[in-house]
Amino acid sequence: MAKNRRSRLAPQEYIDGILAHNPFILSRAITLIESQLESDNQLATQIIDKLMPHTGKSIRVGITGVPGVGKSTFIETFGLYLTALEKQNKKVAVLAIDPSSQRSGGSILGDKTRMEKLSNHTNAYIRPSPARSSLGGVGQKTRETMLLCEAAGFDIILIETVGVGQSETIVKGMVDFFLLLMLAGAGDELQGIKRGIMEMADMLVITKADGENKNAATRAKAQYKHALHLFPPNDANWIVPVEICSALENKGIERIWKNITNFANQTSLNGFFKNNRSQQNKEWLYQTLEESLKRDFYQTDFIKKELLDTERQVANGNRNAAEVAKELLTKYYQITSKKTR
Amino acid sequence: MAKNRRSRLAPQEYIDGILAHNPFILSRAITLIESQLESDNQLATQIIDKLMPHTGKSIRVGITGVPGVGKSTFIETFGLYLTALEKQNKKVAVLAIDPSSQRSGGSILGDKTRMEKLSNHTNAYIRPSPARSSLGGVGQKTRETMLLCEAAGFDIILIETVGVGQSETIVKGMVDFFLLLMLAGAGDELQGIKRGIMEMADMLVITKADGENKNAATRAKAQYKHALHLFPPNDANWIVPVEICSALENKGIERIWKNITNFANQTSLNGFFKNNRSQQNKEWLYQTLEESLKRDFYQTDFIKKELLDTERQVANGNRNAAEVAKELLTKYYQITSKKTR
Repeated sequence: MAKNRRSRLAPQEYIDGILAHNPFILSRAITLIESQLESDNQLATQIIDKLMPHTGKSIRVGITGVPGVGKSTFIETFGLYLTALEKQNKKVAVLAIDPSSQRSGGSILGDKTRMEKLSNHTNAYIRPSPARSSLGGVGQKTRETMLLCEAAGFDIILIETVGVGQSETIVKGMVDFFLLLMLAGAGDELQGIKRGIMEMADMLVITKADGENKNAATRAKAQYKHALHLFPPNDANWIVPVEICSALENKGIERIWKNITNFANQTSLNGFFKNNRSQQNKEWLYQTLEESLKRDFYQTDFIKKELLDTERQVANGNRNAAEVAKELLTKYYQITSKKTR
Repeated sequence: MAKNRRSRLAPQEYIDGILAHNPFILSRAITLIESQLESDNQLATQIIDKLMPHTGKSIRVGITGVPGVGKSTFIETFGLYLTALEKQNKKVAVLAIDPSSQRSGGSILGDKTRMEKLSNHTNAYIRPSPARSSLGGVGQKTRETMLLCEAAGFDIILIETVGVGQSETIVKGMVDFFLLLMLAGAGDELQGIKRGIMEMADMLVITKADGENKNAATRAKAQYKHALHLFPPNDANWIVPVEICSALENKGIERIWKNITNFANQTSLNGFFKNNRSQQNKEWLYQTLEESLKRDFYQTDFIKKELLDTERQVANGNRNAAEVAKELLTKYYQITSKKTR
């Protein structure tokens, strides 16, 4: 990827462009977030800070599911449904958390042809996840991208994840509603589901409920419903629905959206919606602070050099980690003191 | 608790006393670890650093299970078995991770009368967990206590946890072998088991397999064995055994110890035992460093004061967490610079 192919705009130009819902300016601002240049990232962060009063008005929906569950097809169909919704012309942005993109050579969404109709729709915006970044970094960037999309007038943000590592937890930490797509299997439906995912979900949707698969999907629905009974009620006091759908036959899509709006209405009334966002924002602040503290420490040349040796001694059991840590930190604060002067 | 009831010894006196296996000096050194005085903790840390070459020779066993499973009775019976083992006079230390002690008004092990015989045994040492500390802090202190016990010649360290919060993960991070005690229930054995605990266990032991309960325990054993089949093999390449025992009738205890020694032998041969300890030590170093960095930051007066306001602004969605974090950190490094001069 070439860096800085275009020159930067002035901060106010980004702000004005985004508030005018200009998709080209939005894209250029997102490029700042994803840039490898620290100065670009800082500019983006400042722009977002100014735009904050114009964010938060969308419904943020996380979508996950194992490979093969049909995420792209589902999102295309669901997205097209939303853009045509009640003739209100809902604007839909699709973002992705996909730390695997640098390995597989292409983001799940990099190939926009997989959502061809949606990506060509005026009211839709599809943005692949940035490559070459840590999972935490991708989360941070996706979160900032979401805020820019909200300031640019998007009503619904769909955040997709492939479920590598802790990516579901990261998505769960930035959305209002978390949707788990599942396949109807052959009997023992609960096997192979990643631990902890079911508890995160606000809705289960069994995909590909068409043709020969339809009966299996209906049976799976009953099984999942039963399994969900075993969990205690979630914090939102929301009974997690199980739905079946066919993106191919465009069936069940409306019910899915109905559940999401029901959730938003119910949790707005009982206060959960707002509290959850506040909590997410706070956690974001503390994560950002702590990640920065760690990065500053581990990237100090002296610490990098010292750690090679001391890590080995601690690993071998020759040194007490607490004592080594104290020594390293004392030296670190001495160095920091010199640097900042 | 009165502080500094006794005067401190010189560092070398602690070291010599512990290496001479003097239980009174050991207790006084552990008191330094648990002290509320920073200077006591620092002295303990230095003493442990000097003793490190004499640590690591025990087998470290974590023991967990829900309240009512009979942990104290099991540990008493198991401990007494070990101290009498093959006339080798094995020395057994029992430690506990119990962050709830300050709430319940008494540690699970605080009441030593619950392990009366074991606590009176010459070759046994029972130490309640320190009260008034965070879970991470308790973990750190338990870990250092374990090292002192090893330097004082204990062959087997049993670390008990009641399973509050992340306490099992903390114990798993400092032991060689993790034992999960379970009760035979009424049919659906898998319900009510804390998520993730089964995967941590190196052995499952069904307790109270006596009297009318014996058949239920045998049935439960079969069910748990089946459930364990669903998991992929663990990192140690160890097939997790399921055993039944009765601490009351002193049955099944020998098999439990046999499994632990088999595990130690097998994993010593395949290298897992040593690698696991290295890995645990490294993680301990990084945890200690990162906890210190965070503590230094959050305990700075300026940061405490600023956070009150900025946290609210971020929670409300009025500020971008990334920008706020940058501002706070810049000021923090300026202050740190002034302080250390």
